[in-house]
Amino acid sequence: MKHDVQLLGLSNAIVDILAHVDDDFLEAIGAPRGSMMLIDAAQAESLYDRMGPATEMSGGSVGNTVAGFANLGGSAAYIGRVADDQFGAIFAHDMKSLGVQLRLPPETRKAPTARSHVLISPDGQRTMQTYLGACTEIEPTDINEITIGRPQVLLLEGYIWDTPHGPEVTGKAMKLAAAAGATVALSLSDDQCVLRHHAAFRSAIEGPVGMVFADDTEIMALMETDDFDQAADRAAGTGVLCALTRSAEGSVVVHGDQRHVQAAFPVEKVTDTTGAGDAYTAGFLYGYSQGKSLPDCAALGSRCGSAVIQQVGARLEPGALAA
Amino acid sequence: MKHDVQLLGLSNAIVDILAHVDDDFLEAIGAPRGSMMLIDAAQAESLYDRMGPATEMSGGSVGNTVAGFANLGGSAAYIGRVADDQFGAIFAHDMKSLGVQLRLPPETRKAPTARSHVLISPDGQRTMQTYLGACTEIEPTDINEITIGRPQVLLLEGYIWDTPHGPEVTGKAMKLAAAAGATVALSLSDDQCVLRHHAAFRSAIEGPVGMVFADDTEIMALMETDDFDQAADRAAGTGVLCALTRSAEGSVVVHGDQRHVQAAFPVEKVTDTTGAGDAYTAGFLYGYSQGKSLPDCAALGSRCGSAVIQQVGARLEPGALAA
Repeated sequence: MKHDVQLLGLSNAIVDILAHVDDDFLEAIGAPRGSMMLIDAAQAESLYDRMGPATEMSGGSVGNTVAGFANLGGSAAYIGRVADDQFGAIFAHDMKSLGVQLRLPPETRKAPTARSHVLISPDGQRTMQTYLGACTEIEPTDINEITIGRPQVLLLEGYIWDTPHGPEVTGKAMKLAAAAGATVALSLSDDQCVLRHHAAFRSAIEGPVGMVFADDTEIMALMETDDFDQAADRAAGTGVLCALTRSAEGSVVVHGDQRHVQAAFPVEKVTDTTGAGDAYTAGFLYGYSQGKSLPDCAALGSRCGSAVIQQVGARLEPGALAA
Repeated sequence: MKHDVQLLGLSNAIVDILAHVDDDFLEAIGAPRGSMMLIDAAQAESLYDRMGPATEMSGGSVGNTVAGFANLGGSAAYIGRVADDQFGAIFAHDMKSLGVQLRLPPETRKAPTARSHVLISPDGQRTMQTYLGACTEIEPTDINEITIGRPQVLLLEGYIWDTPHGPEVTGKAMKLAAAAGATVALSLSDDQCVLRHHAAFRSAIEGPVGMVFADDTEIMALMETDDFDQAADRAAGTGVLCALTRSAEGSVVVHGDQRHVQAAFPVEKVTDTTGAGDAYTAGFLYGYSQGKSLPDCAALGSRCGSAVIQQVGARLEPGALAA
């Protein structure tokens, strides 16, 4: 059975609102450095009122990965809910302009397009306060043979489980994709997200998920240990291919008996760490779609990750890898 | 009579949509490199469909200057029309978050907030295609004793004359501001704009305008000569203080018998030339508001201009001058 696209992403469709802040600001709003917190519409309004001048660009974890994958030359499609508003138009434009097929139309009657306030500290660390808006309206009826199609890889993000119908939506998507011959990949999003949905993620990995993307804190949360090596060993034991990123220490890819350690690519100056993991996943999956070896996939992932942290914003600028 | 703010800007309120392009793209859309062309709603939609992934941020020439001035610590207010939409909210937020008073509410019933498609070439040159939208709806009734107040400086941009009521709007604003004891400053926008409104600009300089900001092509267009030195001499002869920027060659400030040449500040890498002139004007006017000498004003202008071309976007990031 021929695949219609190499990568199908299913995730929360989000526009990022990026601003530089100092650590006093994070303390004043009660946001731990590096955290992602969900906020409601009123909190989003209040936070935006307090924030400094900002820049807006399309974001969302798996949204970034899908865009990066398409930017590298892969064929991709995307499922996520935006509203019929200007932020929704930005999100849709940025996907379409990379050739990504959008499988859902903009929703017209309910909450506005989601936005994540990305607060960038002087050292490049990012702290996110996310208002899910239209993302909360994704429903099981959005997932069907038409919208899933026949991807080579279906990539889900853990954050989808935070939406009201997330468990049914992801369950249906994984089932349909697996039946269509897809590899199901899961990006764990963040360690707090893993704690919120621990049982669901473990069950998915014992079931349809064949590939996991996680950073060190996420895999340790999932494997219930404070020791990274132990977490990696336990991840290997699941039989699932796990690509585990460790910031400056590079990444480790485990798959049953296979274990490959990939060094991080050298970075001149960290500008904004937003999207490092998403870009790694894009590079890794692009290599995978080309039938590359695991070390080659990991190397391409590292290269994309190091490129994105040297710019502001989570999506690679065109030509960023040429430098 | 005490001033209520140091700087009041009156201009087209615009959100920039920035994207990297190659020169083939510019040729395909028939846009001369470095030009600013006005486009209508249908052209804007078509262009956006053809453009790659983009970043959105508040812009507009004098809008950038007012934001930069406030970022430096000056007190500022702003008159410009935005719609009651998400781009209007972005524009208003970015001004308010710098402490800038907005003197007009968002317009609610007509065209959407203006956007300028800023197409950035690999060498940092920018080409702009601007849809004026809500900006075209500014009317003489928007200009009155309340909205003008008592600024130390009223700064107008040439682009305002491109709007349907521009001549009446600017005429009324200059008259009220001068009556309130303000210095009236005019930023010439671009050389094509000078050609479109040559008689009006000359008349304004013979009348209420006491200060002009221009680059070399603009002042040569206004003074009807191909020779910069001759243009500067003629500018000096008007008796108006003219701050004339020349990209890498720095700037020249003339005022009657006074003439000061300011070298450009060293620049490591030109990333995006958008806003260099606007940032120069912000720095110059900030020095002026502090009672600094012309050479000191020019030096601060140069410093701001060189800082802004080393980042993407036309408004200085917080802390950009600390580096």
